Amino acid sequence: MHYDPRTYRGLTFHDAAPRFRDGRDTPRAYLERCLETIAECEPRVQAFAARNDAAARAAADASSARWKAGRPLSAIDGMVIGIKDLLETKDMPTAMGCAACRDNFPRRDNAAVWALREAGAVILGKTVTAELGGAEPGPTRNPFDATRTPGGSSSGSAAALAARMLPAAIGTQVGGSIIRPAGFCGNVALKPTQGALNRGERQATSMSTHGVHAAAIEDMWQVAIEIAQRAGGDRGCPGLFGPGHPPAAHKPERLIVLETAGWAGLDTESRSAFARLLGELEASGVRLLRRADDPLLEQFERAIADAGAVCNAITAWENRWWQRALIEHNPHGVSRRAKLVLAKAEAMTVADYRAALSAREAAQLSYRRTAPLADAVIALACPGPAPLWTNAESNPRPTGDPVFNYPSSLLFAPAISVPMLGVRGMPVGVQLMGQQHGDAALTAVARWLLDSAPKVAVGER
Amino acid sequence: MHYDPRTYRGLTFHDAAPRFRDGRDTPRAYLERCLETIAECEPRVQAFAARNDAAARAAADASSARWKAGRPLSAIDGMVIGIKDLLETKDMPTAMGCAACRDNFPRRDNAAVWALREAGAVILGKTVTAELGGAEPGPTRNPFDATRTPGGSSSGSAAALAARMLPAAIGTQVGGSIIRPAGFCGNVALKPTQGALNRGERQATSMSTHGVHAAAIEDMWQVAIEIAQRAGGDRGCPGLFGPGHPPAAHKPERLIVLETAGWAGLDTESRSAFARLLGELEASGVRLLRRADDPLLEQFERAIADAGAVCNAITAWENRWWQRALIEHNPHGVSRRAKLVLAKAEAMTVADYRAALSAREAAQLSYRRTAPLADAVIALACPGPAPLWTNAESNPRPTGDPVFNYPSSLLFAPAISVPMLGVRGMPVGVQLMGQQHGDAALTAVARWLLDSAPKVAVGER
Repeated sequence: MHYDPRTYRGLTFHDAAPRFRDGRDTPRAYLERCLETIAECEPRVQAFAARNDAAARAAADASSARWKAGRPLSAIDGMVIGIKDLLETKDMPTAMGCAACRDNFPRRDNAAVWALREAGAVILGKTVTAELGGAEPGPTRNPFDATRTPGGSSSGSAAALAARMLPAAIGTQVGGSIIRPAGFCGNVALKPTQGALNRGERQATSMSTHGVHAAAIEDMWQVAIEIAQRAGGDRGCPGLFGPGHPPAAHKPERLIVLETAGWAGLDTESRSAFARLLGELEASGVRLLRRADDPLLEQFERAIADAGAVCNAITAWENRWWQRALIEHNPHGVSRRAKLVLAKAEAMTVADYRAALSAREAAQLSYRRTAPLADAVIALACPGPAPLWTNAESNPRPTGDPVFNYPSSLLFAPAISVPMLGVRGMPVGVQLMGQQHGDAALTAVARWLLDSAPKVAVGER
Repeated sequence: MHYDPRTYRGLTFHDAAPRFRDGRDTPRAYLERCLETIAECEPRVQAFAARNDAAARAAADASSARWKAGRPLSAIDGMVIGIKDLLETKDMPTAMGCAACRDNFPRRDNAAVWALREAGAVILGKTVTAELGGAEPGPTRNPFDATRTPGGSSSGSAAALAARMLPAAIGTQVGGSIIRPAGFCGNVALKPTQGALNRGERQATSMSTHGVHAAAIEDMWQVAIEIAQRAGGDRGCPGLFGPGHPPAAHKPERLIVLETAGWAGLDTESRSAFARLLGELEASGVRLLRRADDPLLEQFERAIADAGAVCNAITAWENRWWQRALIEHNPHGVSRRAKLVLAKAEAMTVADYRAALSAREAAQLSYRRTAPLADAVIALACPGPAPLWTNAESNPRPTGDPVFNYPSSLLFAPAISVPMLGVRGMPVGVQLMGQQHGDAALTAVARWLLDSAPKVAVGER
């Protein structure tokens, strides 16, 4: 399936509501169409770790009745949603992509899942995650080319969207686990401000967030705000700010073009596609700022130069306390890759961790100083098209390189992947990054980009 | 057992090391003495939810061998420690004082427990907690008067210390669960800066901390710093700062005398005992500041006037996401009291929670502004002697009133209970409160108070 961002259309939900209202369509019929697509594509894509079709059908019937009675619970009542298999769900196991957790079935809903159900959403299945949210891949393949990875760790969420199986899915990011697979799979996706969506039981790390993969930016925002209005943010955090409906498009006056460590290794066609997009933006009157244009930007680029190392150190240390016991009890149920990460963490000292936290705080301060300069930051969501699928131990990053994603994770900043580019028939997402709590404003800029800027396709497969 | 702070001596460990070193004593013999005391007192006190004597004896033997070889792992190698039954331990269940969790046995160590074992400590048992760390009491009685509560929710930790069963125990506080029972039981206890000791899996709330109950301030500090040097603080926090040995005593120049909501309801004998102590402090040259002495203090007292309501709102909301499922699955395994707290949380909105967070931040800022005025804050650790033990549903606070403890929890500030007062033959702790990350400086002031200020006993039982 050759991807062209100018013609590809994912499965949307927000535009179905008028038909639910007048009876031309129902959430149950919508669900059945999803199940048909899944029956067709799942053997090739392998996006799901578990499904509960019966529970989904019952939920869809209840939703159909509410729409028929003119009393939907929310704008996402009846929306068919996949949940990344790191989040607990009361009617499906939570195996976290890890053999050692195969039998984990706590029979309770993650706070965000609870909120989705309260809003009437139809929870259809658990989407494949790389093992424990790390780099060891699950079986999922990229729907646009089954020889390639969908990215990770939110592999199944991104792939299910790309294959038009679902209109939305929940992902999580601690390094680059939402925005990168979204970029590889042509999703619209939001990695919100750190803490904006309640992670419920998943509070082990300080840099992880729930986020939303969707085909339409309207659906992306609506899912996020419906969760936030019911379950709020993480403990200690005020939760997602913004309107109860998708923000209108907003044309940015200025955008900061981020360089970061990833540019040096980028393929020439992806470079050229991004350059063409930037050219179009400039032609339409958007002013672009780069590190040479302002000392604050130079300072900021330096502050995030080691973003990957800092992110990885913090996450490894924080996961150490629970992954140690998991590996101790199930030495054969956890990958060698995950054991190596733990071994690195076991060699860290409290002083190492403190230094990483301090570097993170310094980077956040430096980023905050750039806020008055532009409406948002623009970069790529992923380093070119998805790499070939392989689980060779020699491959350090079988789900792709998060090099473009570490900054927003480190900065606790909202980021959105916008499907603007096609390179050799594969998606390459464009990434927008905002300031903390500026999720709605960033969504408005992303919507303008999606609606008004020309999409670019380069190269042949 | 009539309590007199001038003569009572708890069980200490730091002074045993010289005898371990020269062979006059061993950690195994120390443990056996603890077990004898437990055999004698436990039927009356009921401090333990579970014990693993065999594992403790094995650990004590290993420690004895290390001391004999001149190679103890740390200054607390061989120290017999109780763990509040909210923290996971690999060799004992974690029932959290809740019938619904009776069979919970995850067979892994909380980060702090892991650190204690790494330091050579002997983990003897799980100490009783009020249900889920709330207000529904367990069976534990106050060793100084079995008709009275030991306080809660760290009931068993405080009582085990008072009965000389152990030299140290881990407690946790989210409102007043360490300092209040320590005050009722004559312990020395540290509720450190929020996040200073790694809570491991227990990250559900933003205001909970691990802390240490001990009989000697040397042991209190040593346990805390040995944990922090190995497991650090909560994710995102730098962890406890301070020396690897107990700080030397430091005489304060100025202390702020805190009023707060609790003073109005305090019995006259406790008031008079505290007033006598303050008089002695002034006579020794310590200057006392009160709200009328500085507008910053007046502002600060106002900022914490609603501390209890703010603390309770934040905690109820944060516990909502996991306690809902617990109660749903085990409607008969959770107390009516806990269900009422959940019901209140279910009625809260995200906006209510945000407002509580904002009030907390404002109080913290106001407190930070007072830092230059004095070395520490002084108040009572508990509102007079422990009340009579009762679990009548009509009693809103069967483990006593946390009114004097909410401020330090709200402020994320370190607090220490110092056993300075006896009222009618029962302990009444004095509380010192410092600034965030000033745990070591606060410990130095507490040590001076304990060593140099006269203890006061008033009234007859």
